[in-house]
Amino acid sequence: VAKLAVVGAGMMGSAMCVPLADRGHDVRLIGTPLDADIVRQLRESRRHPRLGAELPEAVRCYSDAELEAAAADADAFVLGVSSAGVGWAARALAPLLGRAARPVALLSKGLELAPDGVRLLSDVFAGAVGHAAPRCAPVAICGPCIAGELARRVPTLVVLSGSDRAEARRFADWFTTSYYLPRVSSDVRGVQICAALKNAYAMGVGLGVGLHERSGGERSSVAMHNYEAAVFARAIVEMGAIVGALGGEVASVWGLAGSGDLTVTCNGGRTGRFGALLGRGYSASEARALMAGATLECLEVLAVLERALDSGLLGGLARADLPLLAHLIDIGLHDAPLAMPLSEFFPA
Amino acid sequence: VAKLAVVGAGMMGSAMCVPLADRGHDVRLIGTPLDADIVRQLRESRRHPRLGAELPEAVRCYSDAELEAAAADADAFVLGVSSAGVGWAARALAPLLGRAARPVALLSKGLELAPDGVRLLSDVFAGAVGHAAPRCAPVAICGPCIAGELARRVPTLVVLSGSDRAEARRFADWFTTSYYLPRVSSDVRGVQICAALKNAYAMGVGLGVGLHERSGGERSSVAMHNYEAAVFARAIVEMGAIVGALGGEVASVWGLAGSGDLTVTCNGGRTGRFGALLGRGYSASEARALMAGATLECLEVLAVLERALDSGLLGGLARADLPLLAHLIDIGLHDAPLAMPLSEFFPA
Repeated sequence: VAKLAVVGAGMMGSAMCVPLADRGHDVRLIGTPLDADIVRQLRESRRHPRLGAELPEAVRCYSDAELEAAAADADAFVLGVSSAGVGWAARALAPLLGRAARPVALLSKGLELAPDGVRLLSDVFAGAVGHAAPRCAPVAICGPCIAGELARRVPTLVVLSGSDRAEARRFADWFTTSYYLPRVSSDVRGVQICAALKNAYAMGVGLGVGLHERSGGERSSVAMHNYEAAVFARAIVEMGAIVGALGGEVASVWGLAGSGDLTVTCNGGRTGRFGALLGRGYSASEARALMAGATLECLEVLAVLERALDSGLLGGLARADLPLLAHLIDIGLHDAPLAMPLSEFFPA
Repeated sequence: VAKLAVVGAGMMGSAMCVPLADRGHDVRLIGTPLDADIVRQLRESRRHPRLGAELPEAVRCYSDAELEAAAADADAFVLGVSSAGVGWAARALAPLLGRAARPVALLSKGLELAPDGVRLLSDVFAGAVGHAAPRCAPVAICGPCIAGELARRVPTLVVLSGSDRAEARRFADWFTTSYYLPRVSSDVRGVQICAALKNAYAMGVGLGVGLHERSGGERSSVAMHNYEAAVFARAIVEMGAIVGALGGEVASVWGLAGSGDLTVTCNGGRTGRFGALLGRGYSASEARALMAGATLECLEVLAVLERALDSGLLGGLARADLPLLAHLIDIGLHDAPLAMPLSEFFPA
């Protein structure tokens, strides 16, 4: 039994508290400055407003102002912040990590572009912690996990990966329950790159749902699945090309982090809904307006990938190597009309 | 423009007639002895009873008794028979192929076990044609294609593969329309093995739908998708292992024939419904009874794979290498209760 501080009370951080509490850990859930309403509601009723589920009694909830008191004696940290919140979390935790080095696990997904290339979020966090805790190297938690399902104890396999394999194994031991089964991978780069890429490509698969709705079709086993499957297969191939070019292991794309997370992301959520709106014929600007307020991780990832492509920092890959990604950039970031280049996907 | 004889008036053979007719070919659709009712209805109304769609006016329909007259002057044959019907088709076409060698394309999916190992359906057909046309080597048509969607002209990418690449390209040219886009692969073994395996593994992904229904859940973005994604990712890994062990190219599993066809097969159809019944708690015997009359290709493939494993003919692979497949064999063929070995799927 460990004292675990989960930072970030959004859907994924909060859902993580369920297996941790079921395992008997001393769990403290600490909201970011953006989570004030959620923390208040959790304290009142234990019910998470966005998860639509109650957290176990044993989970204690704190506001960001209480971080120091709630987390000072924690054995480890689990970060459930958005990719944009990683910098805030690093600054908030740096003093605590400086006082005593402790393992950090990262639920956030995303990539950043630095002058020398694409950076993993685990490196972004370590860089932002900086001199306060120079050996900090977070373990990334990737793989197919819908938060609402984890909170309902649906059987879930995830992948933990960190440069310190023993630390990844320690988290795996802490996290394991009958329904939450972390696996461990040594492919730190490939696993995190997959976790970011899948959002961009799931937007592409979601287009088929919207195209089918636009044509008046109802949800059915006969819809636009042939089109979606062609996009899906091309997505797997392009994810493999990108992971390989950026120094990850292509085999990760086959497994939980790649094909597993892509398929689960295509099953619902904001990314799929955004793709469906584009498929219905809305421009990206119109679709963003219709989903006002939602964080669209697919667009954040597409923006990083576009800048990497334009700067020659995507491992030598060019747009011509990635016809699906190139079109997703055009429609997602530049309001281009949807015209999927299916005939460029595989050799004729 | 070519004279093309499509043999087999089931869903896939009949749907193939739509792009062929749209392309302007002279299309003759010839039923098997089991298709008499379908041919009669097509002649009366052009409506295919199982596709739920009308075939174009230009498609002429014939019964099996009219095969000789309908197909004698055909430039090529497209076989849309079930895997069990490949022997019948070979015997029926052997006299015609013996008179003039002509290219054959095969929509059927499946594998057979011969004393020396797993046989592709293209080899089964060629063997059954025998001395009548000794150089016959059918081109296999694989990849993600729901027949009901093809008949509605949904954009569809398939893979053509044959030992004679020029013949595969010739079929690709004949078949290509604005919405039906055949690609060509030289991986004759891998592509056909994927096409058979995907039925077995899609049954596994379908289990999650049934488990969710059993727990009282409604169809939603929060369901058992985490479980389904873990099974999907493991399926891709095991398909890669089997294709590699049997002499195919593992890269085919990434593409249309593998990940593409697996995802489309998980979206509906008999295989998914059968898996869902197992997930709801029915034994395979009970589920087969509930689906009385339906051909369950997943069970045919599982039976071949089990015999190959037991005879040491699956490229050196054993059950311990394929924990998902081994459990699918147990529940699908031996009425074992569902207890998915999730913790064996990826290294902990």
